[in-house]
Amino acid sequence: MKPNPTAPRLRRIAGLLSGILLLTRAVAAEDPLPSWNETESKRAIVGFVENVTTAASPDFVAEPERIAVFDNDGTLWAEQPAYFQLLFMADRVKALASQHADWNKREPFASLLRGDMQAVNAAGDKALMEMMAATHAGLTTDEFQRAVVDWISTARHPASGRPYTEMVYQPMLELLAYFRANGFKTFIVSGGGIEFMRPWVERVYGIPPDQVVGSTGKLKFDMRAGAPVLRKLPEIELVNDGEGKPVGIQTHIGRRPIAAFGNSDGDLEMLQWVTFGIRHRFGLIVHHDDEARECL
Amino acid sequence: MKPNPTAPRLRRIAGLLSGILLLTRAVAAEDPLPSWNETESKRAIVGFVENVTTAASPDFVAEPERIAVFDNDGTLWAEQPAYFQLLFMADRVKALASQHADWNKREPFASLLRGDMQAVNAAGDKALMEMMAATHAGLTTDEFQRAVVDWISTARHPASGRPYTEMVYQPMLELLAYFRANGFKTFIVSGGGIEFMRPWVERVYGIPPDQVVGSTGKLKFDMRAGAPVLRKLPEIELVNDGEGKPVGIQTHIGRRPIAAFGNSDGDLEMLQWVTFGIRHRFGLIVHHDDEARECL
Repeated sequence: MKPNPTAPRLRRIAGLLSGILLLTRAVAAEDPLPSWNETESKRAIVGFVENVTTAASPDFVAEPERIAVFDNDGTLWAEQPAYFQLLFMADRVKALASQHADWNKREPFASLLRGDMQAVNAAGDKALMEMMAATHAGLTTDEFQRAVVDWISTARHPASGRPYTEMVYQPMLELLAYFRANGFKTFIVSGGGIEFMRPWVERVYGIPPDQVVGSTGKLKFDMRAGAPVLRKLPEIELVNDGEGKPVGIQTHIGRRPIAAFGNSDGDLEMLQWVTFGIRHRFGLIVHHDDEARECL
Repeated sequence: MKPNPTAPRLRRIAGLLSGILLLTRAVAAEDPLPSWNETESKRAIVGFVENVTTAASPDFVAEPERIAVFDNDGTLWAEQPAYFQLLFMADRVKALASQHADWNKREPFASLLRGDMQAVNAAGDKALMEMMAATHAGLTTDEFQRAVVDWISTARHPASGRPYTEMVYQPMLELLAYFRANGFKTFIVSGGGIEFMRPWVERVYGIPPDQVVGSTGKLKFDMRAGAPVLRKLPEIELVNDGEGKPVGIQTHIGRRPIAAFGNSDGDLEMLQWVTFGIRHRFGLIVHHDDEARECL
C-alpha cells in the first residue's frame, strides 16, 4: 500500500477541529445563561457581574453588598390572563360564596361569581381590597399559609393547564442561580402579597421567606385556646408597588441593592433607587419575547 | 547505675496523664461557649443544638428552618444607665438645640438639656416619640445612617468610657457564632429602631442589615435635586416590642424561629410565639450575672 503523504496533515487538522469542538462544548457547558439569546442585554449582565466580582476591578463590590432584587409578576412568572394572586382570590370568593348569600348581588363579588373577570378588573383597586379583606382577613397567618399551599398545589393555569409554579421563566431561573453563584443575595420585591408568595418561592426560585418583600397587611398577636396566633387584619400596611418598592426595600433589606430587574411602570422607582449613584449598578427592564408564553 | 524497675510504669502513667491532659485541652479548645459557666442553661443550649442538627434525631430540623432570634438591649448589649438609643437621641437634641430656642422651655427637651435624664424617662413614651420626631424626621435614610455612624464611632459610655459597640456581652457573641456554625440564620428582634441598629450590627454581631427586625417609622420616596431619596416621616409604623415582636418576626422573617433569647417583659410574646408548638424549640431568658457589667 502506498503511504498517503497528506494523512498526517489531515490528522493534525482533524485534531485541531476536534480541539475547537471540545473548546466550544466546554464554553457552552459553562454558559450560566444558556436560555438567553446572545444579545446586548446578556453581555451587559455578564459584564456587570464579572466587573463587580473581580477583586482587581475598580468596581469590585464586597460580598455582603451584593444584593439583587427581582420583581415577580411578569418578571419571574407570567401574569396573563390576570395576576395569579387575583385568580387565587377569585377561587377563595367562589369557595366562600355559599356562606355569603349577599355576594350574588354585591359588586365586585357578583361579577366575579358570574366569571366576568373584566368587570372585576375594571372595578379597580378599592374593590380588590374589599375582596381581599372579605376573603383573607380574620384568618391566622398559619391558616392563610395553608390556603395558599392548597391552592398552589392544585390550581391550574386556565390556558396552559399547568400548575402556576410552572408558569415561571426559565431564563430568569438561570439568572437567579447565576447571581447567587457569584455571591449575590437574591430578593423578590413584588407588588404581590408577601404572605401569598412565601409558601412556594423557596421551592420554585430558591429564595427563602425572609428574602421576600411584598405588599403587607396589618397583623395582630392574640392567644387562641392557649396558643399564640397572628391574625390578619383588613388593613393594608404597605402597598409594595411604585413608590412603595424603595420603601419596602429599605424596610426589609436595609441596604441599597446593586442590581434590579422589573418589567413594568410599578418597577420605575425601584430601578431609580437601585441604579442611581456613583458605584457600579445594574438595572434591566425585562421583556419576555417568547410569544408562546406571553400570549397565553 | 542500678536500673529502676518502676521507670517504665511511671513513664506509662506519665504518658497516660499527658494524654488525658491533651484530651482535656482539646475538649476545652472545642468548647464553642468558653465564656459560659457550666450551668444547666449551657447544657440545655448545647443539647438543643445537637438535637436539631443531628440527622438521625427525631427532632432534626432542616437548615432553612433553623432560625434563631435575639433581643438586643439587655440581651446582646448593655442597657444601663439608659437605652443607648435614648442617649443617642439626647446627643442629637443637644446638637440641634441652638436651632430650636423654644426647647429650653419646652418639655421633655428642657429636662434633657439640663441633663435630667430621670425626668426624661418619667415623661413616658409619648415624650420620647416627640423627641424622636423632632430630631430624626425629615432626614433621609442616608443622612440618618451617617448620624448613627458618626455617633457610634465617637460617643463613649458614661460609666465605662468605652465605645457603645464594646458594651456587648462576650457570652452572647459566642452564642451567635455557635448557632451560625450549626447552620442557623441569626436575627436581631429588638424594640430599638431598625435604622439605629443596622449601621453597626454587621461589624459587631456579624448580622447583616436584612436580618435586623426593629421598630420602624414610615418612609416616603422622593426625588431631591434629581436624586431618589427616602425621607423619614414622624409616624411610627411598628413598635417592635411586646405583642409587636411576633408581628415583626412574621413580617420580616416569614417563618417561625425555633430559638429565641430575650431578657425582659417585652420579650414575652416573642418567647411564646417561638416556643409554642410540637417541634423541638428553645427559649431562654438571659440574666447577665456579671456585676461589673450589670451595675454600670
